[in-house]
Amino acid sequence: MKLKCKKINISTSGPLIAILNIHDADELDVTALDRIKIKKGKSSVIVAIDIANDNKEIKKGQIGLFKGVQAILKIKDSETVEIEQIQRPNSLYYIKGKLDGKELNEKEMDEIIKDLVENRLTEVESSYFVSACYRNGMTLDESKYLTNAIVRYGGHLNIGRNVIVDKHCIGGIPANRTTMIVVPIVAAAGLTIPKTSTRAITSVSGTADTVEVLAPVGHKKEDIEKIVKRANGCMVWGGVLDLASADDKLIKLERPLSLDPEGILLASILSKKIAVGSKHVLIDIPIGPEAKIKTRKKAEKLKNSFKKLGKKLGLNIKVIITSGFQPIGNGIGPTLEARDVLMVLQNRINAPQDLRKKGLYMAALLMSMVGIKNSLTKATEILESGLAYRKMQEIIKLQGGDPNIRPEDLKPGKYNYEIKSEKTGHITIISNNSLTRIGKAAGAPQDKSAGIYLYKKLKDRVNKDETVLKIYAENKDKLKNAIDICKKCKIFKVN
Amino acid sequence: MKLKCKKINISTSGPLIAILNIHDADELDVTALDRIKIKKGKSSVIVAIDIANDNKEIKKGQIGLFKGVQAILKIKDSETVEIEQIQRPNSLYYIKGKLDGKELNEKEMDEIIKDLVENRLTEVESSYFVSACYRNGMTLDESKYLTNAIVRYGGHLNIGRNVIVDKHCIGGIPANRTTMIVVPIVAAAGLTIPKTSTRAITSVSGTADTVEVLAPVGHKKEDIEKIVKRANGCMVWGGVLDLASADDKLIKLERPLSLDPEGILLASILSKKIAVGSKHVLIDIPIGPEAKIKTRKKAEKLKNSFKKLGKKLGLNIKVIITSGFQPIGNGIGPTLEARDVLMVLQNRINAPQDLRKKGLYMAALLMSMVGIKNSLTKATEILESGLAYRKMQEIIKLQGGDPNIRPEDLKPGKYNYEIKSEKTGHITIISNNSLTRIGKAAGAPQDKSAGIYLYKKLKDRVNKDETVLKIYAENKDKLKNAIDICKKCKIFKVN
Repeated sequence: MKLKCKKINISTSGPLIAILNIHDADELDVTALDRIKIKKGKSSVIVAIDIANDNKEIKKGQIGLFKGVQAILKIKDSETVEIEQIQRPNSLYYIKGKLDGKELNEKEMDEIIKDLVENRLTEVESSYFVSACYRNGMTLDESKYLTNAIVRYGGHLNIGRNVIVDKHCIGGIPANRTTMIVVPIVAAAGLTIPKTSTRAITSVSGTADTVEVLAPVGHKKEDIEKIVKRANGCMVWGGVLDLASADDKLIKLERPLSLDPEGILLASILSKKIAVGSKHVLIDIPIGPEAKIKTRKKAEKLKNSFKKLGKKLGLNIKVIITSGFQPIGNGIGPTLEARDVLMVLQNRINAPQDLRKKGLYMAALLMSMVGIKNSLTKATEILESGLAYRKMQEIIKLQGGDPNIRPEDLKPGKYNYEIKSEKTGHITIISNNSLTRIGKAAGAPQDKSAGIYLYKKLKDRVNKDETVLKIYAENKDKLKNAIDICKKCKIFKVN
Repeated sequence: MKLKCKKINISTSGPLIAILNIHDADELDVTALDRIKIKKGKSSVIVAIDIANDNKEIKKGQIGLFKGVQAILKIKDSETVEIEQIQRPNSLYYIKGKLDGKELNEKEMDEIIKDLVENRLTEVESSYFVSACYRNGMTLDESKYLTNAIVRYGGHLNIGRNVIVDKHCIGGIPANRTTMIVVPIVAAAGLTIPKTSTRAITSVSGTADTVEVLAPVGHKKEDIEKIVKRANGCMVWGGVLDLASADDKLIKLERPLSLDPEGILLASILSKKIAVGSKHVLIDIPIGPEAKIKTRKKAEKLKNSFKKLGKKLGLNIKVIITSGFQPIGNGIGPTLEARDVLMVLQNRINAPQDLRKKGLYMAALLMSMVGIKNSLTKATEILESGLAYRKMQEIIKLQGGDPNIRPEDLKPGKYNYEIKSEKTGHITIISNNSLTRIGKAAGAPQDKSAGIYLYKKLKDRVNKDETVLKIYAENKDKLKNAIDICKKCKIFKVN
């Protein structure tokens, strides 16, 4: 069938879509979500279709093409293209099989992920894959095949070194900026750590958001490789690299129902480590009532899965289970967190000791994983001698930031509000979820200097009317939003 | 957040969608597939969002609205609307629960279907419901709640009669136009049968396509009610009535993976019967290697489920298991099938006897279900006396067709091609699937007079070079397409 193109000048995410008039769709015997092949000269592209039910904008004889399709076929308006029906991709049969309880083999998993990345599956079809993995679980082999397929159809870093280390934290804990302590210490110790981080998805600040207060984070692959070769480490946003584009697509489909199949979670994390070339990976699983992992039992199960899958993938994996009952550090929000980090690296006496201790511990573990003896002593020496701070300055400079920025330069938002204790006693509960809601309402992470500063942490003694925390915002409206939320939720408990 | 509307003048099927620029989406902390509320004055609408990744067509500060949303809010171009984040609908939690293996209660099922029909669920979310029902199965109670919810959120016919009967055939068998024999017989016997049928989805012709050769089928609800009150029966296309719009949406999501969860199948069929007010339902399950149901065991299981669910729903259900090894009747395709039907009703000696016999049998069963004794004798009298034919003429006239149309007036396509037997023997296999592919390639059901005429059926003796079937098309190209397919597939076997 020949149809005349009508350009729809919008570029959307997800699979390629074309819009057919209902009469042409009937004639082609296709319906919404079916696939067609669009041919123009020697180029062709496979798209999913949607149906225009009236004859107004997409008339009989026309085909509406969004930007993605236009670009591939180099379409001019009113140009004629040839439409063909096509076979359904084999990956659909594999997904159906998985939904029916069959185990996917390497070839099948590879083809599903290839089709997913190359936009040959519609969102509905891909969501059947997610629900099959969620409902039926995944074997260790399936997780291995999935990890490898994500790596195969994603970007890579080529650092050209043998010993590359990495760390990852299963999220849910505000602040917790250990990456920014660990990277300078281990890089100063001579280890290579090309650290890529995410921006906040549901949190007040992601590591990439906080690093960005000190230096740009959106570097190209070649620049990251150069920085790491010079400084042994970096702290950049992983989004640019497209390390795991299959993973991004799966996460998007998991979100509506908050599905998080363990097999996909494991593959998601480890594929990014493999894609940067790392062989030694430290995983931090914080547990707490408001952490992602809530019980020790679940954390132990996940730890076990990480170890087993790591072995299958030829990775040296160490998993630590840590306390996730409260934020690590005092500042929450990009600027306040960056200030905490600089204070730790500069060995200031008012630096948050929990952040310092956890960062040192993790750095030491990574160092011991590659055979460095007395690693905690060595890591502490690197920190206390100022070597770690100088490494941080080097990385900030290479990433394009000001290496001489001081904690004093990092000023929180000028609108603020103090929350005081209503009675004298000890802090017994701090709610991560409430802090997250308040920090986001105050404007973080978009407003870099918005956030919360905690003057008191768990077990600290507090007097009646003493300030427990201070909320910062860049404008009055957002401060008001944050205060409104404070009134609605329990942030801490004093007993 | 306030955004300026940009009209995208396309109306698409499915849930309401708006497009946000990625910067605004970040600010709102929403991502693709999340929901937002768009407010304009006192009107508001909830939509799912997609993200424009560049700043070209949907700029920061703009929101792209498709026609459905424009219509609801009566949007003018460049008008400003207010955007709000909203809570996820509760039905998402119920769907998650079902995916986790929980049984849905009546309220939960009702809310899922309500949100589905009212476009509050995205396709991805709805597909999780389908996969949960597919993977975990549905209890009889869940099927009951689903049936009732589909009826509640769909259209209805109000015929105002107590004894309303209906029939349904689980598809897959070409021709098999028993509806057009059964309706006139039982309507002439005084039963009320407001028959709604579908158009072809994957077959050469649906009942609605074939009836349309004799009379229009796309009547409005009020007209159908009038016709049925006058003639006791009708044969219309159900699509106009929107009897089961939830069901249509679910079927669309089932198609990509050919999922067909039994609970949804049952609810899909019975909800349409309840929506037209029928209490007595005859279900025909043909079995055969190329029928939808392939084995007697599966048919018996489905029969059992129909009986049990019918009882729960207060329906009088009879299920027959019939032979689905070959087409019923000789003509395949709208015109050829309509000709067969008229020949049966006019008691012509060359009328297909299998269609006559099956139609009589089913009509008699329906009559006996409402207490008519000696129903086969009575049905036969109604057919042979010409009463059934006169009832057919009455219905054709009321639906707006020519009641005096004769079989001779129904001419197949002028391009034709005969397929002959390569040897002498008996026909031992006829392939329904091959006939379907050929009939569709020849142009049916869009080309009414395209199709196939079978001169020989199973067990018939055939000589070498004798014609077994003839393909008809309205143009040369399509005839050629059909002939090409003939060469690729086994249509029949002679032994």
